[in-house]
Amino acid sequence: MTAMDAAALDAADPLASFRDRFVGTDDAGLLYLDGNSLGRPVRDLPGRLAEFVEHEWGERLIRSWDEGWFDQPLTLGDRLARHVLGAAPGQTIVGDSTTVSLYKLIRGALSAQPDRRTIVVDRGNFPTDRYVVQGIAAERGAEIAWLDPDPAAGVTIDDVRAVLSDDVAVIVLSHVAYRSGYIADVPGITAAAHEAGALVVWDLCHSAGAVPVELDAWGVDFATGCTYKYLNGGPGSPAFSYVRADLIERAAQPIQGWMGARDPFVMGPEYAAADGIRRFVSGTPPVFAMLPMMAMMDLVEEAGMDRIRAKSVALTEHAIRLHDELLAPLGAVLASPRDASVRGGHVTVDHPAFPELIGVLWRDGIVPDFRRPDGIRLGLSPLSTSFAEVDAAIRRIADELARAA
Amino acid sequence: MTAMDAAALDAADPLASFRDRFVGTDDAGLLYLDGNSLGRPVRDLPGRLAEFVEHEWGERLIRSWDEGWFDQPLTLGDRLARHVLGAAPGQTIVGDSTTVSLYKLIRGALSAQPDRRTIVVDRGNFPTDRYVVQGIAAERGAEIAWLDPDPAAGVTIDDVRAVLSDDVAVIVLSHVAYRSGYIADVPGITAAAHEAGALVVWDLCHSAGAVPVELDAWGVDFATGCTYKYLNGGPGSPAFSYVRADLIERAAQPIQGWMGARDPFVMGPEYAAADGIRRFVSGTPPVFAMLPMMAMMDLVEEAGMDRIRAKSVALTEHAIRLHDELLAPLGAVLASPRDASVRGGHVTVDHPAFPELIGVLWRDGIVPDFRRPDGIRLGLSPLSTSFAEVDAAIRRIADELARAA
Repeated sequence: MTAMDAAALDAADPLASFRDRFVGTDDAGLLYLDGNSLGRPVRDLPGRLAEFVEHEWGERLIRSWDEGWFDQPLTLGDRLARHVLGAAPGQTIVGDSTTVSLYKLIRGALSAQPDRRTIVVDRGNFPTDRYVVQGIAAERGAEIAWLDPDPAAGVTIDDVRAVLSDDVAVIVLSHVAYRSGYIADVPGITAAAHEAGALVVWDLCHSAGAVPVELDAWGVDFATGCTYKYLNGGPGSPAFSYVRADLIERAAQPIQGWMGARDPFVMGPEYAAADGIRRFVSGTPPVFAMLPMMAMMDLVEEAGMDRIRAKSVALTEHAIRLHDELLAPLGAVLASPRDASVRGGHVTVDHPAFPELIGVLWRDGIVPDFRRPDGIRLGLSPLSTSFAEVDAAIRRIADELARAA
Repeated sequence: MTAMDAAALDAADPLASFRDRFVGTDDAGLLYLDGNSLGRPVRDLPGRLAEFVEHEWGERLIRSWDEGWFDQPLTLGDRLARHVLGAAPGQTIVGDSTTVSLYKLIRGALSAQPDRRTIVVDRGNFPTDRYVVQGIAAERGAEIAWLDPDPAAGVTIDDVRAVLSDDVAVIVLSHVAYRSGYIADVPGITAAAHEAGALVVWDLCHSAGAVPVELDAWGVDFATGCTYKYLNGGPGSPAFSYVRADLIERAAQPIQGWMGARDPFVMGPEYAAADGIRRFVSGTPPVFAMLPMMAMMDLVEEAGMDRIRAKSVALTEHAIRLHDELLAPLGAVLASPRDASVRGGHVTVDHPAFPELIGVLWRDGIVPDFRRPDGIRLGLSPLSTSFAEVDAAIRRIADELARAA
């Protein structure tokens, strides 16, 4: 395989032109392979921000609350639902951090399961998911049942079945494993959980915007996820939360704020939850912080999730080929599935030298992520990453690895 | 009094030139009197945002987490602490909505008071404060003791003393009342609470950036507040949270996320809270959403809180003079303190015609806030509001009121 292959892949890529619509993609000295930690900004974002500051904020001022802002957590939620999450309107909101959203959804799930007191979570899940569960278990006097999936893959339906019981209230799992990239069987696991009377909170941080999601068709109960990865919302952008329609009124979220109340501006003496998904809103929605992801959503809708997934698979296949050709001979080990049908948008490669090398790579403008103990994680954001970029980056990583050996 | 007085006041105002540094202040057709609901954007914000998008985000990408972003909740918190809140470093963070911050702080206060189960809150407090308390009381099996302050003023030390007991764990109060603008006696009430073994969570939404605050000197336990009012952070910008140094390790906050863990990137099996105020951080900090308030903080530091307060008092005095001259004869009633020493940065005026008039005013570019049942709230953001603007707006309101009569 040669770099010519990458050029051919780029030439044949129907989404290739999207790359130019992101900031920084014209900088040949920057090879960015961490779109699943922080997506690049959309190129027209500064102009959109200026327009917002000058007019929607600076000129309309508080009148904008009546002209769209008040509903923005729901309208942007519905937009994500339709184009990214496979969900009907009225079940998705945007706001809060993923951590706070997890807290609210898990507490909501527990409130709908008053006779059960076990929470299931896997040791391979992202730290914040585990830490939130630990905090909730301690405060609610709940038990935690831990899953120990294969670290190079992720949680299987058999792993889950092994711990199900009539005491399991809720299971907290990731759709795409943050380290390996393994895609869990969401519909299968959800159905197995339901058979045992359990609910599932799915963390979509590493799938939303890269891997097709069909929340309604899959019978999902609750889901949340980041928007600063494949949805390019910028550092610390607000998360989305999905609650299936029939659970919205059964699952009480604990952070009762004015923006989730039935009529916030009545400011009445008693909290009465709003009808519908709005009751999962707590405080004033982060309207300004939603702007970057709104810019990205234009591109996602234009490209379509099917084409995005096809490009994502092609990018990770290309990265694995380059790994096999250039990195494996130097002692690297692929820590992600070879089967594309169970592999998300990123690929992790382990090597004992990576903890030392990562600083050198970053300094030189080759920017993958690092995940302990010795993995580099290549997050190949489909719309902003070219095959040539992957190619050049992995060749540089191989060069550094050879030098370090 | 004539409009000439306003011109003279503007001419003598040492902070007058700051007005030009906000978007929209050159639009003579817009009279904005709601800076305490949503502050105007700082004029150089679009350029700052473009710079951030192009470089800090678009070029440095995830490397920026090591180059300032990770600490931004604390560094911006310390900046607010020093210039706005009267607090030493290491006690303040920025992140989450005010509602979520209230939830975390009240839960934290309860965790430090395991033998007490009463929460005190006043019926005049902002809805989200009351709703959060109601939610927490329900989930923790706590009692609520309600205060009923004079609606045209606010909570006094005697109101609080009347309900204190050895079962009161925490009291939730606002520094400046959101409707009347009354300034509560923070040091006096806090000391009275402490005598009875209670802790106090102070909501600073309507004081931060307009009224001087001395959290350390006043012995405050916990405080939080909005940044989209007098700190001009934009719609839904993240709140700040203060926890007094000696309470940080005694008060456990319930939403344990990776960014509040001791070493987030170890991603260890058990949550161990970070040392210091970082343990009150939950999810990934809203770095992008902090940018507008950072722009405003430059102006606040340049002006200084003492001069800001002096201008604020002069603006509200001017508004009250205009009320007395123009609105009171038409049946309006001042619903805010006449004594400037207990009046914050806004003034509320009631009149039965205001519910009908507010739509007309907004349409015509005269933009105060409306508060039920029949109040208009004039929020006079000190750095962006001129005396002439207040003058012109109240004259227009008087004209509309005369027409409606």
